[in-house]
Amino acid sequence: MVPGMSLADQPPAAVLVFQTLLVHGSLTRAEIGRRTGLSAGAVTKAATPLLADGWITELGRPAGERASGRPATPMAVRADRARFVGVKVTGDELIGVLTDLTARPLASRRAALDSRDVGTVVLAIARLIGQLRAAAGAEGDDAVHSVGVTISGDVDGQTGTVQYSPFLDWRRVPLAQLVESASGIPTVIENDVRALTVAEQWFGAGVGLSSFALVTVGAGIGCGLSIGGRVVSGAHGVSGEVGHLPVGGTDRTCTCGNTGCVETVASTHAITEQARQATGDPALTMEEAVRLAHADNAAVRAVFSRAGHVMGLAMASVANLIGPERIIISGEGAASYDLFADQIRQTFADHAFGAAADCDLVVRPLPFEEWARGGAAVAAQRVFAPAK
Amino acid sequence: MVPGMSLADQPPAAVLVFQTLLVHGSLTRAEIGRRTGLSAGAVTKAATPLLADGWITELGRPAGERASGRPATPMAVRADRARFVGVKVTGDELIGVLTDLTARPLASRRAALDSRDVGTVVLAIARLIGQLRAAAGAEGDDAVHSVGVTISGDVDGQTGTVQYSPFLDWRRVPLAQLVESASGIPTVIENDVRALTVAEQWFGAGVGLSSFALVTVGAGIGCGLSIGGRVVSGAHGVSGEVGHLPVGGTDRTCTCGNTGCVETVASTHAITEQARQATGDPALTMEEAVRLAHADNAAVRAVFSRAGHVMGLAMASVANLIGPERIIISGEGAASYDLFADQIRQTFADHAFGAAADCDLVVRPLPFEEWARGGAAVAAQRVFAPAK
Repeated sequence: MVPGMSLADQPPAAVLVFQTLLVHGSLTRAEIGRRTGLSAGAVTKAATPLLADGWITELGRPAGERASGRPATPMAVRADRARFVGVKVTGDELIGVLTDLTARPLASRRAALDSRDVGTVVLAIARLIGQLRAAAGAEGDDAVHSVGVTISGDVDGQTGTVQYSPFLDWRRVPLAQLVESASGIPTVIENDVRALTVAEQWFGAGVGLSSFALVTVGAGIGCGLSIGGRVVSGAHGVSGEVGHLPVGGTDRTCTCGNTGCVETVASTHAITEQARQATGDPALTMEEAVRLAHADNAAVRAVFSRAGHVMGLAMASVANLIGPERIIISGEGAASYDLFADQIRQTFADHAFGAAADCDLVVRPLPFEEWARGGAAVAAQRVFAPAK
Repeated sequence: MVPGMSLADQPPAAVLVFQTLLVHGSLTRAEIGRRTGLSAGAVTKAATPLLADGWITELGRPAGERASGRPATPMAVRADRARFVGVKVTGDELIGVLTDLTARPLASRRAALDSRDVGTVVLAIARLIGQLRAAAGAEGDDAVHSVGVTISGDVDGQTGTVQYSPFLDWRRVPLAQLVESASGIPTVIENDVRALTVAEQWFGAGVGLSSFALVTVGAGIGCGLSIGGRVVSGAHGVSGEVGHLPVGGTDRTCTCGNTGCVETVASTHAITEQARQATGDPALTMEEAVRLAHADNAAVRAVFSRAGHVMGLAMASVANLIGPERIIISGEGAASYDLFADQIRQTFADHAFGAAADCDLVVRPLPFEEWARGGAAVAAQRVFAPAK
């Protein structure tokens, strides 16, 4: 890693000042003091090396010019201090974005995958990184600080290994190292839903919340949980498996081998299957099912309504157990959210316990570029929120 | 509060050294350094004021004698530095314990409650505190540092208010202030399950775990969640409501007004009701139901088995969402745990997702004195883990 390209060696107060500016934008020293509880002197002491290293800047003053240090001068993060690439890998496509230090997208590219072979995918990722780097118009070793690759499944971010990816049918792939070798840029990897949760926590609908859940509805139903500013990872690598809560109320067997999971009723695949049975058309697609439901086909509407009911039970379970401030609903399935919405809200209200019903349910359409941005946020996080 | 009777003014490194000794017992400076990541110099610097103030001691050396400071001399927390009273309030009884700084019980007392009237209960608590103080054989203002009162229901520890206690039928009772006035000792209050979780985290089956859930089975079914060393409190005051997860699979209405809750099948009351229906004996008690089940009455055994199934679904939900390292099962209902155990484990294994099934299920009989100790742990925690 390039020397000085992380806050890991800064004292905790400097990291805190930096994070406060990252989340709240420009603030005066006095405002930083109020938000962090640091004294005026401590804020100034913490800010000095950050200003000197170019991590933050005093507004209205060119970077590098001698700082006045007056308490009323607002300071802000220097977003252009470092650039990151985030890549989301799906079964048939790569989606990449180039961002600044605040995970703001500067450019994006997509690339079709014609094979799920590890070597092919790694080279395609490296090529996409090269294109985004060129799009940045920047050359040289530090044009891109690091890369974050996200992928659904059991991903061990510590060792950089994809333990299991159902969609790609990968097992124990040391993806971080492979991408790093192919691209020449430091690379981290993370589960895609957790990465999106990190992006929402720092830069999205989760900013400033004590806790939130991000539920993604689509081929699978995933969930990221952020509690007290940290994304829950699970002692055994499993957490947020909303799709496998046993509230489906059926004996149908899930892809995971268990029965009664939410996904047996509410995943895209399950909805399509049930709509095929309801219409007697064995070739019906999800798109056609959505169209039929919008055209008021009662049998197909009932399928969506049942899915909404089960999702409502799952979200009530999250609320009753964790008590998040907000539940954000997203994923490809959110596009047909109008077909579930009433039932989700009704069932949630019926089963949330007491004040847990005050949890805010919001729908946020997050295109795949936002998921890729999650990868960039995970890479950037290593810089601005270094692990102890 | 007595001056110097909290670590709140100590630097973070001193708090960390103290907590490390609290959890791990006696350690040398070198061992503390290894566990905290602090340098030898930083450990010595952090330990000096703790030794001077009598929070910790060097073993084999009388407190107060000049410290040698040699790295190989083990240090330990001075448990007798402060005493605490913990009280658990039930619908018909108070259970109190006197403990040292490490929440080790020194004495315990119980007192029957002949009324649930707020004034009567407050005076009974103050009387119990007086008895425990006398039992300590100590007099003077600082014989007891502070009191922690725990009670089931919606308890706001920040404001010291019991928002709602179903068993006592209390609403918005400023209990902390009332007990403090009546006893003359600083008082904190907490929900009883959360307090027990705090005790387990610091001193019980949760020590050293990255996360765990404590499920208490009895009149109600509660759950405390500890993640990353913090007990989850919920943005709206609700969390860990395992008893109200909608996995009951019935339309029976719960005491909370919702349907399908775990408690409609697995609470003591629900089990008694179902056993009455199964036997046709409308006066059957829970004790008799347990006896019939142990005597192999098939209908009554089926009631316990159904309750175990629903508890297993609830625990699988906890595991799939949070991924705790361990689930601890306790509460009055744990006494008849043998009647549920096989079914809980079977259902848990059937519905835990992937590696979430590696979560350790343990049963721990915790008498009410342990719950009272939870109150003392919450009071002590304000001293040794002051909020930022």
